[in-house]
Amino acid sequence: MPGLLKRLLIGRAMRSEELHETLLPKRLALPIFASDPLSSVAYATQEILLVLTLGGLSYLHFTPWIAAAVVTLMTVVVLSYRQVVYAYPSGGGSYEVVSTNLGPSAGLVVAASLLVDYVMTVTVSVASGVDNIISALPALAEYRVLMAVGFVAILTAMNLRGVRESGRAFAAPTYLFIGGVLIMVITGLIRYVVGAAPVAESAAYGIVPRPGDAHLMGLALVMLVLRSFSSGCTALTGVEAISNGVPAFRKPKSTNAATTLAAMGLIAIVMFVGVTALALISKVHLTDDPCRLTGLGQSCTSYTQRTVIAQVAAAVFGGEHSVGFYFVQAATALVLILAANTAFNGFPMLASILSRDRYLPHQLHNRGDRLAFSNGILALALFSAALLWGYKANVTSLIHLYILGVFTSFTLSQLGMVRHWNGELRTERDPALRRRHHSARAINTVGGFVTGLVLVIVLATKFTQGAWLAVLAATVLWVMMRGIHRHYDTTSAELAVEDPAAELTSPPRVLAVVLVSTLHKPTMRALAYARAAHPNHLEALTVSVDHDETAALRERWDEYGVDVPLKVVDSPYREVTRPVLEYVRAIRRESPRDIVAVFIPEYVVGHWWENLLHNQSALWLKSRLLFTPGVMVTSVPWQLTSSARAARPVGRAPGWVRRGEPRGPGSNNSSGPRNDGPTRSSRR
Amino acid sequence: MPGLLKRLLIGRAMRSEELHETLLPKRLALPIFASDPLSSVAYATQEILLVLTLGGLSYLHFTPWIAAAVVTLMTVVVLSYRQVVYAYPSGGGSYEVVSTNLGPSAGLVVAASLLVDYVMTVTVSVASGVDNIISALPALAEYRVLMAVGFVAILTAMNLRGVRESGRAFAAPTYLFIGGVLIMVITGLIRYVVGAAPVAESAAYGIVPRPGDAHLMGLALVMLVLRSFSSGCTALTGVEAISNGVPAFRKPKSTNAATTLAAMGLIAIVMFVGVTALALISKVHLTDDPCRLTGLGQSCTSYTQRTVIAQVAAAVFGGEHSVGFYFVQAATALVLILAANTAFNGFPMLASILSRDRYLPHQLHNRGDRLAFSNGILALALFSAALLWGYKANVTSLIHLYILGVFTSFTLSQLGMVRHWNGELRTERDPALRRRHHSARAINTVGGFVTGLVLVIVLATKFTQGAWLAVLAATVLWVMMRGIHRHYDTTSAELAVEDPAAELTSPPRVLAVVLVSTLHKPTMRALAYARAAHPNHLEALTVSVDHDETAALRERWDEYGVDVPLKVVDSPYREVTRPVLEYVRAIRRESPRDIVAVFIPEYVVGHWWENLLHNQSALWLKSRLLFTPGVMVTSVPWQLTSSARAARPVGRAPGWVRRGEPRGPGSNNSSGPRNDGPTRSSRR
Repeated sequence: MPGLLKRLLIGRAMRSEELHETLLPKRLALPIFASDPLSSVAYATQEILLVLTLGGLSYLHFTPWIAAAVVTLMTVVVLSYRQVVYAYPSGGGSYEVVSTNLGPSAGLVVAASLLVDYVMTVTVSVASGVDNIISALPALAEYRVLMAVGFVAILTAMNLRGVRESGRAFAAPTYLFIGGVLIMVITGLIRYVVGAAPVAESAAYGIVPRPGDAHLMGLALVMLVLRSFSSGCTALTGVEAISNGVPAFRKPKSTNAATTLAAMGLIAIVMFVGVTALALISKVHLTDDPCRLTGLGQSCTSYTQRTVIAQVAAAVFGGEHSVGFYFVQAATALVLILAANTAFNGFPMLASILSRDRYLPHQLHNRGDRLAFSNGILALALFSAALLWGYKANVTSLIHLYILGVFTSFTLSQLGMVRHWNGELRTERDPALRRRHHSARAINTVGGFVTGLVLVIVLATKFTQGAWLAVLAATVLWVMMRGIHRHYDTTSAELAVEDPAAELTSPPRVLAVVLVSTLHKPTMRALAYARAAHPNHLEALTVSVDHDETAALRERWDEYGVDVPLKVVDSPYREVTRPVLEYVRAIRRESPRDIVAVFIPEYVVGHWWENLLHNQSALWLKSRLLFTPGVMVTSVPWQLTSSARAARPVGRAPGWVRRGEPRGPGSNNSSGPRNDGPTRSSRR
Repeated sequence: MPGLLKRLLIGRAMRSEELHETLLPKRLALPIFASDPLSSVAYATQEILLVLTLGGLSYLHFTPWIAAAVVTLMTVVVLSYRQVVYAYPSGGGSYEVVSTNLGPSAGLVVAASLLVDYVMTVTVSVASGVDNIISALPALAEYRVLMAVGFVAILTAMNLRGVRESGRAFAAPTYLFIGGVLIMVITGLIRYVVGAAPVAESAAYGIVPRPGDAHLMGLALVMLVLRSFSSGCTALTGVEAISNGVPAFRKPKSTNAATTLAAMGLIAIVMFVGVTALALISKVHLTDDPCRLTGLGQSCTSYTQRTVIAQVAAAVFGGEHSVGFYFVQAATALVLILAANTAFNGFPMLASILSRDRYLPHQLHNRGDRLAFSNGILALALFSAALLWGYKANVTSLIHLYILGVFTSFTLSQLGMVRHWNGELRTERDPALRRRHHSARAINTVGGFVTGLVLVIVLATKFTQGAWLAVLAATVLWVMMRGIHRHYDTTSAELAVEDPAAELTSPPRVLAVVLVSTLHKPTMRALAYARAAHPNHLEALTVSVDHDETAALRERWDEYGVDVPLKVVDSPYREVTRPVLEYVRAIRRESPRDIVAVFIPEYVVGHWWENLLHNQSALWLKSRLLFTPGVMVTSVPWQLTSSARAARPVGRAPGWVRRGEPRGPGSNNSSGPRNDGPTRSSRR
């Protein structure tokens, strides 16, 4: 039944050979890799305004300056990442750049930040998508959290089924969004120019400043503007996605990727500037608390503010029942969910790379039935659903946790690139190339400096607002990953073969002990099997909890003529495990070089409830015996008829040699390794 | 840590020899076995009144008649059980009587009813005890459920510690209660006779009849009276306790038990009649819903009615601040909790007997560290706590589920006794004894008829009120116990040794397969151990999920000069378990008479979180392999250094023979069975 359910939800299993990469033309690569940075246009302007209106309407005139700063930053970052694309066409992304140039610890910082940020990409994009759906259909406002978690569940199922990021279907929403927003911007600007400027539904409302945020002067004002700028920087999230995707581009890969990156930057800037301009023109008045809106009266608690993009679209296209409004809202919601989907590609992939490098559990490295990294997908889904639940899918609260990781990774990878160019310059002699390296280094230096500055600003303005949680999460991840790495290192050092010949030498003697509780068929079989293993010494052991039962056992032992000596150990405290452990350890103490083979007769039942009816001491005993050195624990199962149904039928064994044929090292029936590439260190 | 916590709560483990029985004189046996029936005086009168007042105050004149019926019933049941005590001095109780005389299915009906009723004894007694505490300290009213569950938890802990029912401390509350109630009854009656009759606090209130329950005529009136009688029958619960406890009496056991039973009946009747009389004299007006009390006004929702015994005590001793009132309330609460404790003795004991007879899981048959039947105690505690929680510790709601089981068991055991006497009469020739048997049979016939009638009345009047749940629970239990019995029977028939010589014959050949994932020390050790077992054929098997890794393994295999052939099976779907199972089954198909010994190298880690970092496929694989016939599964553990701490140190092995001494069937180091009593069928 669970198997069937899984098949229904996930689909049939896929063979490893079905894994292949499709190379993408630029027109597909742009929407696929850039849906995250482009979609942030949907909320970046809004977050800038929300901070400024804390002080009422009087600081809104800072908006163009802040937008200009964001645009400058975007330009710097895009230029910097074009250098990364050329220098690291393998698509390792920031983690690779930083690990290679600044060392694994710095690389881990980037990895931890990115993992946290992937979670935030899902939560913020989904929450914002839900916001835009609610802007179009306000009746859904009460199902906000449910809808958000539902979208995460749908994305999870889709990705577990192995939906590939190269699917063409994924390109459409991005182009619809770009098209819709550009038409809106152009229409709006034309209306402005011809004197019929659009007017937002909230244009008439005033905003009462938050106590303490009115009439700010000096440092306090600077802080407010910087906070607003920090919020606007969300427009930059996901810019590095193209640099991770270089291998998926058609040749010349780096050039195509760099071109796409530039196009993405240009489109994002145009859209962002356009939406921001229209928000100012149409006088969108948005606040974190509807009750600070003047002119709304008592109904403020039940009033749902529409998103900036919704208000602008309604104003431009003539109201919230126009086709244009619905089109922009639908495209926005779609592209935001799609942006969340990019994290469902990125997170499991990064987790798998980290797992390959032994920083995360091996389970994250394995591909599931549908060749997706199932465990990584599930981990991402769990974390983001929990956050959406905990923060009630509120974009503004969630956004405080965002972009910290993005800028950590920006800054460190720019620094890494500077060191990379330094290295290149040390060996490069061609003057043309040297000149190019010099200019690249200059770009990355500026990039590193600017993004580092923004990182400091973001930290300073957002830390107490919630960013501390992101910092904490990344720190915990970093410490955990180092611990895991250390554990794997210690383990493999401990397990490494040192002296093959000595380790393959068999121990001098095998002393077999068959555990007996009563004399039934499973016990008889265990005795027979134990003897077939030709031990140097064989005895049976029983733990006496009840003297009557032990006497009965002895009687039957003689009656059946069992020619194996039966030892009895008393258990005054009615325990079974401890006396057996003590007995086995005593044998080991007497002859430390021999091995003790413990045979445990077990009967196998078919239903879970049947297990409740039988003593589970065998399972516990086995697990405890494994802790005793020099012991071999053998289960001799007896299958009850009820177990036959539970044993799932399996098909024909594919690669089995008939027993008549000669068997030897040469007759291996393997289909053989098909490629003999570089040997990877083998792991369990 | 969990071990330490257990020691603190439960105490040190006790040796099996510490189990012994103390024989009880009558003066101790009475309070210990009779606390349950005597304590029901605390709620029996109240439940009679609560039903009658559904129709206002006009039906209260039926009370004396109902009380008389209860008293008659009590007399009949006590007389009947005196016969049981003489006929079955072994203390098997109703379950034994009915199983022996009416067959195991009927015995199981009694057992199921009694198990349900033990749970109800705990819930009703605890709920009523809490009620009486609240009557004395009304401020505690809001903690009703918490207090009730708390008392269950305390009783559980005490019983897990192995508090013996023979403890003298347990006798005191019963005598305090008897004394307190008798003094109260005598004082009250004297006050009535001298013309200063006590007046209850609720005497002034009228009661508005429940719509539909006023002016009842004919059948409806009969039903109301019968319902009231059914509720009053709670006075009879626990009467059979003495018949279960016969072996604990001093000699002559049966005579002493019968005398104690008679004394108990007499005391219970006197107390019940006295309390009922005083309740009528002092005009206690009680209702299931305080808002039907007239003269209380708006405050009815917050008004907590005191119990009948509390109102009577307050009226007799001069108010709710008198010493007499507090004394009676304290004694009542104590004896009620003590009555619950008798179920904590009875339930686990009955469960253990049922488990011995293979009707319940074996786990209920084992004594815990403190020689108490820990699993039975925990089961009882869980069920009763759940009921108290679900029914908000409301006595009147809970009482509907009660006494059904009691009367089922009464009726069936009386019928069993009739058949018992019939059997005796068939063989007995002594005229004096025949005469005694005849009169005993007459008593049991009357008893069976009367209790059977009451059972029908209880079923008819209470079924829809909640008794259906008790019937359902008992039915489910009955079906479950039969199913368990059938399962154990089938299993032991399947496992019974048929041909010892043939079953002990070793299989012709052992084909060993060592599972290999990578070549590290655990694998080397598994290979060495497998060779030490001298199999007829030895090979290593690896599942190829990743061609590169398999190639690396092969390379290393040659490099280390491992002289065991390495088979490779491909796993296109990246599974491990299925290819191994298929491989092993294919071997078995080729040579069905040989056994396949599968060796699995495992490494053992010390911390639970380390397990998360390693693939758990070995565990799953082992459990699946056990379903395959003719397979022996051997774990070859490799203890990582971190596991050393987790292996708990154990003391010196107590009964270990030095290896230098001769070993053989004669040298068993057992302390030997100390008694060679009748052989019980041995169970796993």
